[in-house]
Amino acid sequence: MSILFSFLPKQEQQDELVKKFPHAEFIFQKGLNEELLKSASILVTYGEDIDAPHLKTAEQLKWIMVASAGLEKMPLLEIAKRGIVVTNVRGIHKTPMAETILAHILSIKKSLPLINENQRKGEWSKRVSPTELLGSTAIILGPGAIGGEVGRILQAFGVHTIGCNSSGKLPPFMDEIVTFDKLNEVLPKADIVISILPSTEQTKGLITYEHLQSMKQSAIFMNFGRGDLVKEQHLLRALEEERIAYAVLDVFEKEPLAAEHPFWSMNNVIVSPHISSHSSQYVIRALQIFSSNLNAWMEQKPLENEIDLEKGY
Amino acid sequence: MSILFSFLPKQEQQDELVKKFPHAEFIFQKGLNEELLKSASILVTYGEDIDAPHLKTAEQLKWIMVASAGLEKMPLLEIAKRGIVVTNVRGIHKTPMAETILAHILSIKKSLPLINENQRKGEWSKRVSPTELLGSTAIILGPGAIGGEVGRILQAFGVHTIGCNSSGKLPPFMDEIVTFDKLNEVLPKADIVISILPSTEQTKGLITYEHLQSMKQSAIFMNFGRGDLVKEQHLLRALEEERIAYAVLDVFEKEPLAAEHPFWSMNNVIVSPHISSHSSQYVIRALQIFSSNLNAWMEQKPLENEIDLEKGY
Repeated sequence: MSILFSFLPKQEQQDELVKKFPHAEFIFQKGLNEELLKSASILVTYGEDIDAPHLKTAEQLKWIMVASAGLEKMPLLEIAKRGIVVTNVRGIHKTPMAETILAHILSIKKSLPLINENQRKGEWSKRVSPTELLGSTAIILGPGAIGGEVGRILQAFGVHTIGCNSSGKLPPFMDEIVTFDKLNEVLPKADIVISILPSTEQTKGLITYEHLQSMKQSAIFMNFGRGDLVKEQHLLRALEEERIAYAVLDVFEKEPLAAEHPFWSMNNVIVSPHISSHSSQYVIRALQIFSSNLNAWMEQKPLENEIDLEKGY
Repeated sequence: MSILFSFLPKQEQQDELVKKFPHAEFIFQKGLNEELLKSASILVTYGEDIDAPHLKTAEQLKWIMVASAGLEKMPLLEIAKRGIVVTNVRGIHKTPMAETILAHILSIKKSLPLINENQRKGEWSKRVSPTELLGSTAIILGPGAIGGEVGRILQAFGVHTIGCNSSGKLPPFMDEIVTFDKLNEVLPKADIVISILPSTEQTKGLITYEHLQSMKQSAIFMNFGRGDLVKEQHLLRALEEERIAYAVLDVFEKEPLAAEHPFWSMNNVIVSPHISSHSSQYVIRALQIFSSNLNAWMEQKPLENEIDLEKGY
């Protein structure tokens, strides 16, 4: 069984895998090696390198392990036709992303950007107006693994959490749940609206200018899912008109964000360069998930985090 | 019964008190009115205006309600001699301070200052190295009402909490407790050291250069108690020598911090101008505590938050 990596874990992480699975043949290479792919039965990738033509020659390929959460760049239809199993690292992002989301919320609520600016000016100024998280209301668009972790911590801060999903089924750590079509009914209540939605046919353009307009003027809108959730021109307009107080954006319609984009210099926008899931623990955790799945694969047991290739998540 | 305020609550807050206590005579004035103090039986103050000579003429005074937590500026000995009861608003700071402390911790852990700097430069850079709060260890110096709230939220983030107090008795939301004299044994384990200690004979100069030196190089030291906990020259030295990674300071030896102080321009120091307890909810909560105590006072029941004048807290 040949297992091809298209990225390079640290030497000690490679050694650990080799030691743990003495009967597997591991090939660690930076970048997708098309020759070696032909004979590989398992590919471990960040998911941005494999395309439809590759599949034609990868005749042995039975399982693609994607060490990432987004699968938009993968030829899912062709993979499905070939009967190849795809798993990802769903859940791996929940700790770094929930901590990052909370960091941004608290930073804004506690006026840290202003305190920072005053420090740079050497100005001892008590004229800052921090607000409290306790008693506020947050809407979580996509209350899955990551959204649930955000909800869990928000609840610890005394925040009322409203989840929003397609099923209307109440997930953990949400005080309420609404379906997407009822979103407009709850938006006016929210102090914070956080999206961690993936990009699917259902979520593209889900948030409109009218939605933003219906939110509190003091509301914080956070997009940590995918940039196509809302048209940037709509978001820009709502921010320029001060319909909402703040946008914290980790994802954009086009990444990297263009140098001339107005978001860069807006006082009510935080530009985070799609790094909210970054963590010193990332590869360690991804390889733990892979190891556990490789054991299951060898024992022909069901794999964790298998992707429904039709739904795309 | 004459109740003198030396600060001005909002008109609707005044009206509510007058309505709630029709038999009391309320006098709301900004600044301590020495004439009116002579006939007042209760003084409601932020605690920075009353001194020993005032007490000589305030013959009716039986209770001083301090709408603050620090009592260093009050003539506690003279007050004790006169048998005057002092209460404060212990607990009122717990929500804003815990939220602020978490905001600073997460901001540093998630590299928000660098992300902010990159945004100002219009630079899309993924070269940031956020670290995780999950699995780290925090020492809380003074695990009382505020420290306990900090501990409760840290535990929700998966942080191991070590309290440090004088009794060695385990308070809520601490995984361990040590006494002050054992502090040097636990400091090397800590990723975050947070002080919310008041200024007392026991806490002045409690943290030494040796303590700071024994901490992890990656550690964050936070002083949200009082500035005399550690000599600034010792802290400065430890920071210049990079013995610790960061200091977040809300209190200083001398406030406001002098314009020429090196802290202002140090990359590893956050200067917060003693505002961590600020909150839009402050006066509302202080008057709730006062109302409840005034009811108790009228019914000759024990008061909440009564100060032990010998201990000073």
